[in-house]
Amino acid sequence: MLKVKVFVTLRESVLDPQGVAVKGALHTMDYKEVQEVRIGKYLELQLEKTENVEERVKEMCEKILANTVIEDYRFEIEEVVPS
Amino acid sequence: MLKVKVFVTLRESVLDPQGVAVKGALHTMDYKEVQEVRIGKYLELQLEKTENVEERVKEMCEKILANTVIEDYRFEIEEVVPS
Repeated sequence: MLKVKVFVTLRESVLDPQGVAVKGALHTMDYKEVQEVRIGKYLELQLEKTENVEERVKEMCEKILANTVIEDYRFEIEEVVPS
Repeated sequence: MLKVKVFVTLRESVLDPQGVAVKGALHTMDYKEVQEVRIGKYLELQLEKTENVEERVKEMCEKILANTVIEDYRFEIEEVVPS
């Protein structure tokens, strides 16, 4: 079994209104040290091991997990040791 | 300047309808190897260095970045080297 961690983030060029709102709230709560907040998605997938797993995860990201018009993605694949 | 990566995930005991929906879609697209999908938030904060930064980030998570009733959080703090 494999565990895949996928990080989906808005592209630098894309405005992040959610991030701006959270930053404002943090400043209101006196966390003035916060300069910027960017909010994205963090997905954890459990997969059975297959051939070309890297390629298939890339396809999953490109097709459904990320909107590649406005988002970037990266992923990490780990072997899950049965407990 | 510091960069803080925050990972917010639903607690194991909490049903993840979004994750179930994405898993179903992946199966429809013939990625049958996918056993489970859990969807959470990934936040990147840029902060000015302060005293007790770890404690203050913990507070930010507890108060606003995560809903600790149904979510867990963890974070990583990195020094940002000015380019």
